[in-house]
Amino acid sequence: MDSNLEQFASDNYSGICPEALDYMMKANEGSAPAYGNDEWTQKAADGFRELFEIDCEVFFVFNGTAANSLSLAALCQSYHSVICHENAHIETSECGAPEFTSNGSKLILAKGENGKLTAASIEEVLLNKRADIHYPKRKVISLTQATELATLYSIDELAAIKSLAEKHDLKIHVDGARFANAVVALNKSPAELTWKNGVDVLCFCGSKNGMALGEAIIFFDKKLAEDFAYRCKQAGQLASKMRFISAPWLGLLETGAWLKNARHANQCAEYFEQELLKIEGVEIMFPREANGVFVQLPENVITSLRAKNWLFYSFMGIGGVRLMCSWNTTIARIDEFIRDIKEAMGKTN
Amino acid sequence: MDSNLEQFASDNYSGICPEALDYMMKANEGSAPAYGNDEWTQKAADGFRELFEIDCEVFFVFNGTAANSLSLAALCQSYHSVICHENAHIETSECGAPEFTSNGSKLILAKGENGKLTAASIEEVLLNKRADIHYPKRKVISLTQATELATLYSIDELAAIKSLAEKHDLKIHVDGARFANAVVALNKSPAELTWKNGVDVLCFCGSKNGMALGEAIIFFDKKLAEDFAYRCKQAGQLASKMRFISAPWLGLLETGAWLKNARHANQCAEYFEQELLKIEGVEIMFPREANGVFVQLPENVITSLRAKNWLFYSFMGIGGVRLMCSWNTTIARIDEFIRDIKEAMGKTN
Amino acid sequence: MDSNLEQFASDNYSGICPEALDYMMKANEGSAPAYGNDEWTQKAADGFRELFEIDCEVFFVFNGTAANSLSLAALCQSYHSVICHENAHIETSECGAPEFTSNGSKLILAKGENGKLTAASIEEVLLNKRADIHYPKRKVISLTQATELATLYSIDELAAIKSLAEKHDLKIHVDGARFANAVVALNKSPAELTWKNGVDVLCFCGSKNGMALGEAIIFFDKKLAEDFAYRCKQAGQLASKMRFISAPWLGLLETGAWLKNARHANQCAEYFEQELLKIEGVEIMFPREANGVFVQLPENVITSLRAKNWLFYSFMGIGGVRLMCSWNTTIARIDEFIRDIKEAMGKTN
Amino acid sequence: MDSNLEQFASDNYSGICPEALDYMMKANEGSAPAYGNDEWTQKAADGFRELFEIDCEVFFVFNGTAANSLSLAALCQSYHSVICHENAHIETSECGAPEFTSNGSKLILAKGENGKLTAASIEEVLLNKRADIHYPKRKVISLTQATELATLYSIDELAAIKSLAEKHDLKIHVDGARFANAVVALNKSPAELTWKNGVDVLCFCGSKNGMALGEAIIFFDKKLAEDFAYRCKQAGQLASKMRFISAPWLGLLETGAWLKNARHANQCAEYFEQELLKIEGVEIMFPREANGVFVQLPENVITSLRAKNWLFYSFMGIGGVRLMCSWNTTIARIDEFIRDIKEAMGKTN
Repeated sequence: MDSNLEQFASDNYSGICPEALDYMMKANEGSAPAYGNDEWTQKAADGFRELFEIDCEVFFVFNGTAANSLSLAALCQSYHSVICHENAHIETSECGAPEFTSNGSKLILAKGENGKLTAASIEEVLLNKRADIHYPKRKVISLTQATELATLYSIDELAAIKSLAEKHDLKIHVDGARFANAVVALNKSPAELTWKNGVDVLCFCGSKNGMALGEAIIFFDKKLAEDFAYRCKQAGQLASKMRFISAPWLGLLETGAWLKNARHANQCAEYFEQELLKIEGVEIMFPREANGVFVQLPENVITSLRAKNWLFYSFMGIGGVRLMCSWNTTIARIDEFIRDIKEAMGKTN
Repeated sequence: MDSNLEQFASDNYSGICPEALDYMMKANEGSAPAYGNDEWTQKAADGFRELFEIDCEVFFVFNGTAANSLSLAALCQSYHSVICHENAHIETSECGAPEFTSNGSKLILAKGENGKLTAASIEEVLLNKRADIHYPKRKVISLTQATELATLYSIDELAAIKSLAEKHDLKIHVDGARFANAVVALNKSPAELTWKNGVDVLCFCGSKNGMALGEAIIFFDKKLAEDFAYRCKQAGQLASKMRFISAPWLGLLETGAWLKNARHANQCAEYFEQELLKIEGVEIMFPREANGVFVQLPENVITSLRAKNWLFYSFMGIGGVRLMCSWNTTIARIDEFIRDIKEAMGKTN
Repeated sequence: MDSNLEQFASDNYSGICPEALDYMMKANEGSAPAYGNDEWTQKAADGFRELFEIDCEVFFVFNGTAANSLSLAALCQSYHSVICHENAHIETSECGAPEFTSNGSKLILAKGENGKLTAASIEEVLLNKRADIHYPKRKVISLTQATELATLYSIDELAAIKSLAEKHDLKIHVDGARFANAVVALNKSPAELTWKNGVDVLCFCGSKNGMALGEAIIFFDKKLAEDFAYRCKQAGQLASKMRFISAPWLGLLETGAWLKNARHANQCAEYFEQELLKIEGVEIMFPREANGVFVQLPENVITSLRAKNWLFYSFMGIGGVRLMCSWNTTIARIDEFIRDIKEAMGKTN
Repeated sequence: MDSNLEQFASDNYSGICPEALDYMMKANEGSAPAYGNDEWTQKAADGFRELFEIDCEVFFVFNGTAANSLSLAALCQSYHSVICHENAHIETSECGAPEFTSNGSKLILAKGENGKLTAASIEEVLLNKRADIHYPKRKVISLTQATELATLYSIDELAAIKSLAEKHDLKIHVDGARFANAVVALNKSPAELTWKNGVDVLCFCGSKNGMALGEAIIFFDKKLAEDFAYRCKQAGQLASKMRFISAPWLGLLETGAWLKNARHANQCAEYFEQELLKIEGVEIMFPREANGVFVQLPENVITSLRAKNWLFYSFMGIGGVRLMCSWNTTIARIDEFIRDIKEAMGKTN
């Protein structure tokens, strides 16, 4: 059906990448124990332990909203709070899932340029909110890496937030919807980007990286994962045929496709940005660092592009146009889009 | 890996059937809008409307625990209750998911032969519980069709329960983990087995029927589905790449594989039962009506079978051995199992 | 013990007023049915029906946090949202109670001068938030009357908000922590301030008005109160000896003490404001309309006053000093406080 | 109004005893800091520490349902379970409050003669339920002392349950709705009946002991009370004018009224039982040990008594008549009731 879809709407519009599919097919031979008691799941979990160079706890759930909500609920009681950026996906795009799953934990919104929290912006929020029993007790800092604006937290920025977290006895959660893109762009090891810089739990997204679905929740502090398997089961997040989530993960890890896919998406976005910058009147909104570009376009250009069936989002409350690249984005398609922008801009002038 | 697994443990040990896989592959061509705004999802939903001969509301979620919990939560407030059989999956095997999702609704357990509620056993429970504000208000009757004991509710039994439900102003929820098996075994239309006999909402299971994962929640009373899409999203049950759930559903429906798979599983179980009955000392525990056989075997026979790596469950609190058949069960494997039983029985005598 | 407490900290530092106490003593003669099945509770509920000139549903709970949370939970599902002022008590001072009780409803914060929402500020928030299933669906506007800043919503302002609510299909909840003070100050009937101008549910506070404890929840739309008694019971808000909440309410209503107390508190605050305005260098922060005055005082003056054991709050995120008056505030005490300010200010200059 | 109420319905039909009232009046002199930051609350908490001979954590909430639910929620996550007697108040009479407050913890019902769990009956339940992630993980044993059937756990019985709890790593919660009656009847110290025999948390009821309302939650293991004040606040269980709960508690403790009231109630029940036993055809249902008597009476006798406006309950699912005595029960009233029974029985024969 939609196979010729013109889109830069989201990296989750893409299908299953060959490596993930290949392992899914392999996993489909014969029967296997349900609920994760199969060899694929064991191997995939071990794969993450090797990748992160630590004996971590690994859980597989269906999607990112679930991963974020369940891991935050593991860190928070109902009367605790999570400090996140006002543009954080957990705030803007998960329909209150963290509040629901934790039975009421509050998200406290902080500001910060380019979609990033800073130690200073977090501290400001802490100072401005009651710190007694009449307000939820602060418990967690949630970061998104790469951010919702396709920017990155550097190691130094992570280290500063880690210090603040230790000072205030806060845990650090990372929404890794595009964690692979961050690893590639920052050229740091997964360990450096997580537990070596204070991250307690990471939600590592598979679907945006090329899988059909599936998210890995990785607890670097194993104590925080106590009884977490019960939590997943109770929340309807324990797959009976788990192998169809875990085997594709193994495919991504064993073949290196997780890096290849992320690198391709990042490079496409870089190319996209360069082409956009060549067009007079187009303004890049944030420093592009991962697999998305945010541009300000004239309203009539946007209208014109939509009329040609190009799909893309504007970012709620920010405006502009978000152009996401994924593992299956092609340079040819970017060129077409650029050509259409230029044509529309021409009509503008 | 586990491709030669010797198992009658569960129909969710099986892999993806060819028809579901075929449609999944087709859906993997190109990109598609996320979150169910794709053509596959639209067609699959329409497929269910046609199948059930009614303009119902259809939602796709990841698994059966989620489907049951979310649909019950749509029918119940936290201070309401659900009457179910003491062997119901929602009670025994979902780790309190209904209570969690509904924020506290109580399951009230009723008895009944062969894993089935009766109008009388429901009424007995209603009489024995407080009907004032000090106890959760009764709101829903939950049935499993086919039951956890592989038995069936006849049309007459459903009609009697419908009458009772109307008398007490109760809604009817059906856990259709093996609904396809029931349709085949009862030789009634899906409509007759649901809304024509009082069912308000059905959770129709795809994974046990041959899919990788995916459950359809079908509200026959559309008013009960108000804002239900928000509920799914908030609970982490909205797939971004929804087409990989909905396209396989379409595959099952369009090709008739949903019936073929269920019929095959039922016939295997029937054959299994007949072979078991030929063995002296083997006792069938419940009248087999769908795709599972429950047998009482001597303890040393069970030990002997497990030693040969046969996988199967015994049913909590009931004992005996549960032997489930699925779309990929083979007569040859059943024959091997029967032979191993006979051999072990021989040693007994 | 604390009987000579120097305080303008809160109207809930005051004790029980004579009329409430008198009825509590009367209610203490002999035994009475528990859980509200007593005559006092019946009479108090009828008293509210008469006061509000409508056949409303009345429930008594222990405190304001519970009243707000339970009534909001009756209006919202977990995936709904409540629009309130950023200074609203439900946001700043209830420790996430609304989120907990509703199992996750989100509070959406709007701005507005003098602690008041306006139709425009509500509409702005509605425009800036996603209106699809990825964000909680807007369901309720919550107002505080009198506000946390001791200001008032006029009938015209209420009417404008009512229009907006109707346009967007939103319910209106009023936190009436100081509703009595608003009735007196606005010189409007309780009916005009509520259901005649779109209010669906009011939480009417007894403790700040002179009771030991107890809040009345009044649903003007009886359909919204369906099964609400179960909700109260389940949330631990059904008093066994209910008469000790309801009889004092009856005392306030029958004797008119609810108005007398509120009028006294308002007049004290008015006097307080006038005396403060006479002092050079003292700045009133908001137009005082009910029983509290907010003033900006030099830091050393605040320190000096605290050193003399005066108790008062500053308002989180706003600064300044909040001076609340209650039914037992005395002019003499205000004069002493004014004298102490003047003395401290003198030292300043 | 109801001052001449003929009742043995419940000890919560009684009013406020003189000692509790006296301290409430004292606490009403002048103003006091809100939310428990007053001297009365401090003294009452210290009073409990002295009474229990341990540095425990003490919290005051409004009623027993809240106390039980909040303390269980402090011990349980949503995917945990609580083992209690099938007649436990938390199961039969709190409208699902524990499930709501804990966001889904399951109550597992065990049997046991005379309303009491035994180590054996608990162990049986543990054996009959799944112990994997598909069923809530067992976490707490909840006892009621004195039980709902007015029977008592002896020190030996408590010790046996303590051993079992340690073996299975379970916490012990005690619903002390009538804890004072148990202390008097068993003639053991509060410490012996609680932490010296494994109890982790006690909900000590004030209203049935003579207060208007108010329950003390006592954590003997202080670690279990971490952040519990936030939990109370969020659940709407933090009284603003806390002194009106804590001062009466202090009154009961300082004057010894808590023992006097309980002793009186127990003695009345003992007298009641003796008089009932003198009547031919009356059968005592359970060994009376605290302040209630359960008797089997002919249906027409019950009808006759109700016709004379006597109020009493029959126990759901058990039948018979429950006759509760309280601090204000009089022998004269018991004699009248006995006389009315005899008269009605006479008509029977």
